[in-house]
Amino acid sequence: MEKDITDKILNGDVRAAARLMRGIEDNLPQAVEELRHLYMHTGKAYIIGITGAPGVGKSTLADALITSFRKRKFKIGVVAVDPTSPFTGGALLGDRIRMGKHATDKDVFIRSLASRGWAGGLARATLSIVHVLDAMGKDIIMVEAVGSGQGEVDISRVADTTLVVLSPGMGDEIQMMKAGILEAADIFVINKADKEGAESLKIQVEQMLGIIPQNKDKWKPIVILAQAVNGKGIEETVETVLEHKRYLISSGQIKHRRSERARLELVEAIEHSLRLHVNEIIDDDNFQNLTTALAQRKIDPYSAAEQVLNRTIIAKKPRKSGKKNQDI
Amino acid sequence: MEKDITDKILNGDVRAAARLMRGIEDNLPQAVEELRHLYMHTGKAYIIGITGAPGVGKSTLADALITSFRKRKFKIGVVAVDPTSPFTGGALLGDRIRMGKHATDKDVFIRSLASRGWAGGLARATLSIVHVLDAMGKDIIMVEAVGSGQGEVDISRVADTTLVVLSPGMGDEIQMMKAGILEAADIFVINKADKEGAESLKIQVEQMLGIIPQNKDKWKPIVILAQAVNGKGIEETVETVLEHKRYLISSGQIKHRRSERARLELVEAIEHSLRLHVNEIIDDDNFQNLTTALAQRKIDPYSAAEQVLNRTIIAKKPRKSGKKNQDI
Repeated sequence: MEKDITDKILNGDVRAAARLMRGIEDNLPQAVEELRHLYMHTGKAYIIGITGAPGVGKSTLADALITSFRKRKFKIGVVAVDPTSPFTGGALLGDRIRMGKHATDKDVFIRSLASRGWAGGLARATLSIVHVLDAMGKDIIMVEAVGSGQGEVDISRVADTTLVVLSPGMGDEIQMMKAGILEAADIFVINKADKEGAESLKIQVEQMLGIIPQNKDKWKPIVILAQAVNGKGIEETVETVLEHKRYLISSGQIKHRRSERARLELVEAIEHSLRLHVNEIIDDDNFQNLTTALAQRKIDPYSAAEQVLNRTIIAKKPRKSGKKNQDI
Repeated sequence: MEKDITDKILNGDVRAAARLMRGIEDNLPQAVEELRHLYMHTGKAYIIGITGAPGVGKSTLADALITSFRKRKFKIGVVAVDPTSPFTGGALLGDRIRMGKHATDKDVFIRSLASRGWAGGLARATLSIVHVLDAMGKDIIMVEAVGSGQGEVDISRVADTTLVVLSPGMGDEIQMMKAGILEAADIFVINKADKEGAESLKIQVEQMLGIIPQNKDKWKPIVILAQAVNGKGIEETVETVLEHKRYLISSGQIKHRRSERARLELVEAIEHSLRLHVNEIIDDDNFQNLTTALAQRKIDPYSAAEQVLNRTIIAKKPRKSGKKNQDI
């Protein structure tokens, strides 16, 4: 059965992929099982992260990039990590409608991922959906996420190439500093470049990049002026992405990035597994008693947490024979 | 020594409080120890959450509210949870400068909390700083956080009263839907009410509130027009907050909210404790080997996670005698 789904997805079956993605989003245990099988068949796709403040035109840019990549015959997957209301039940109008023109193109698969109320790790869910798209045979996978700097998916840890989208007149300089995206970006796209201030924003970004100590072997971020809505700057963006890809491969840095991603994924998987244990605990009567005791200040949260953990999860750790032995 | 710091903070010592807050932000183990002692002395302050999209004027509103609460002799603490760049080293210009006029008022304590790169739970850190302010004897603590709906601190779970700040012409209707803040708000403040569209935004919000099924015993969110920059609507906001507080107390709902908060805090403490264990594991040689195996697709992340956990943390769980026995 699981084998069957794996095969279907490897053959690009859209329905099987969509079902698995739903399972991932709903955090179903069998989705994890299926991902285990798929995982061995992944690692071929190239991942592009697209981030920036709300309103800068990330989706419009993604849309234009799809068109351009499709001309080059690349198969495309998109994961849009978007804030969603539990109230609206997960319906995300804007992006889907806007990218609707690719709806009839079977080599384009677009998936939104609700982030609000997401119980597990958002990075884990995002990467899981990326893996499904990868296994489906997509050559390029774009991950679009709001970059508020507020604990959202750190897109640069997930992507091979990270595009940071800015637009003039949004106080971007400050936004940029705040979100720490200067260091994360491989390419800056200044969208809505017909607006006043685009050129000066470009200069500002380039000056800021000048402040960061640049290793001469290191990729120096490129700043591109674009108008995604009418395709201006899109070819340049695509060319620059491909150039960055060649750079990552020739410098060997792609290995480093992917090892980082594997590390992130392992940590997320560990936290996921631990969270399952915690969820089990939370169902416990004792947990409710502890919560009450906590609200009444009869115990502090750390002592309460220790009680819970000692009683359930944490083993008396037999110290591994290792170079570090803190017991001595 | 720890006792000493507790006493100092209980006496409102600003320097001791600031040092502990730094320890919390740096995730120092002794900060947790000190929080344990302090915790028993907390639970007296009233917590107001202020959230909304970037640029709506949350800080300006917080600033105006401070002035108004101070006229009523309330002692005030503020935690501004803000995206920060690791690059700028945590310096947050805007807010601090803006609220600088309270710098000489010893009964106002304002603290920024970087959110970017925060290794532990952001909710845990925020609540920890709230506890310090509470122990210092602040009557009202405001927590200001960007509400992008992207896994940031879910302010309504931390606060007694949640203010959602909107401003005209920012596509707020959509933002609102996306972020699911309609359900979270106790009070809406439409800031920059001199701008075109303020009145119609108010009507829109009220219409949307009309859609949500309202329990007749439930607090019905109030929508207030304000211009924080010149104090307009601030008295009304303060009065409404105090009215909401009275409502929570008389309806008994404050107990429910605080029990929810305790629950959140216990879960965060458990996750914190588990994260410490995970961090220990990550230092392990074996972890690097697993990461490499993962990047090469020799193993999947979930099997790798299982290996790590079985080897270190997870005890053979002796099933507690409880009503649920899944083994049967």
